[in-house]
Amino acid sequence: METLKQTILSQGKCFPGGILKVDGFINHQMDPKLMMEMAEEFSTRFATVKANKILTVEASGIAPAIMLGYLLNLPVVFAKKKRPLTMGDMLQAEVFSFTKKQSYNICISKEFLGKNDKIIFIDDFLAYGNAAKGIIGLCEQVGAEIVGMGFLIEKSFQDGGSYLRDLGYNVHSLAIIDSLENCEIKIR
Amino acid sequence: METLKQTILSQGKCFPGGILKVDGFINHQMDPKLMMEMAEEFSTRFATVKANKILTVEASGIAPAIMLGYLLNLPVVFAKKKRPLTMGDMLQAEVFSFTKKQSYNICISKEFLGKNDKIIFIDDFLAYGNAAKGIIGLCEQVGAEIVGMGFLIEKSFQDGGSYLRDLGYNVHSLAIIDSLENCEIKIR
Repeated sequence: METLKQTILSQGKCFPGGILKVDGFINHQMDPKLMMEMAEEFSTRFATVKANKILTVEASGIAPAIMLGYLLNLPVVFAKKKRPLTMGDMLQAEVFSFTKKQSYNICISKEFLGKNDKIIFIDDFLAYGNAAKGIIGLCEQVGAEIVGMGFLIEKSFQDGGSYLRDLGYNVHSLAIIDSLENCEIKIR
Repeated sequence: METLKQTILSQGKCFPGGILKVDGFINHQMDPKLMMEMAEEFSTRFATVKANKILTVEASGIAPAIMLGYLLNLPVVFAKKKRPLTMGDMLQAEVFSFTKKQSYNICISKEFLGKNDKIIFIDDFLAYGNAAKGIIGLCEQVGAEIVGMGFLIEKSFQDGGSYLRDLGYNVHSLAIIDSLENCEIKIR
């Protein structure tokens, strides 16, 4: 997606260790107009899948997910990283965060994910695919089907994308970063 | 706001201790159409304030904030509850969570909040106003001005609303809960 690629090139910042910082327009300060354009692109790419729900993980996935939910008229559920006191029966999975170098649990109330659900999973980044693996785990626990996965930015030099595509998932990334070597952003 | 009130009455759940659970349409599963309607209502109420930025706190504030940012064409910044490894100079404030019974820090990068900013603060709940106090603290540290505060649901029997209005803040709540006594939801 051209607008996103140009914004990454002009405003993204590279850090040693393959880290791309996009906190000026995606995951700290957000550009709502760009966010809606990205959701529109997802709505085109997922036009033929039969989904009844969108799933994401707090916090950076929420903005693109709610925009896509609005366009497709589907409810959006975000997995939580801390279990609220008022949450009843829940599904839980462990996720390792590459940027934070630690594991955390994600949870979803059993009320909002079940065997009849057909899910589009949305997130900001696809790197090693750890959040996606957590979501796959939650869906497998109840027999929900994942009919699409959409990421704003994929880092192709980390193996999440190939892992998910090899498993047969319908993965769409709006910008694919092929290299961040020497802190130079190379976009496909 | 009538649609929101009706949804709270039909889908909200009461818990002892003044807790209202709205996780079927606001803060776990989200209804994007309702979210956009609420943002439209905010955009009307804040039509005359001169804001250049919307501020919220992860995670439940993000959806209404991004929708409002889209309608008003303003950038949206969400305060984080955990400092990312890549965040440079930052502003920090302590917030006590009523529902979670513990304190946490919120932080915003100094890149995204400064003395020329005129802020609309958006959040899902106004109870004791603790998140709002944290945001006020962050804004005071740099001299940013808060020109409006918008909440989806206010609990008038907890004192955040009167505290903020007494300080002169321009507070708008889309549904005001006057009582949850005996687990009966009374909306103004």
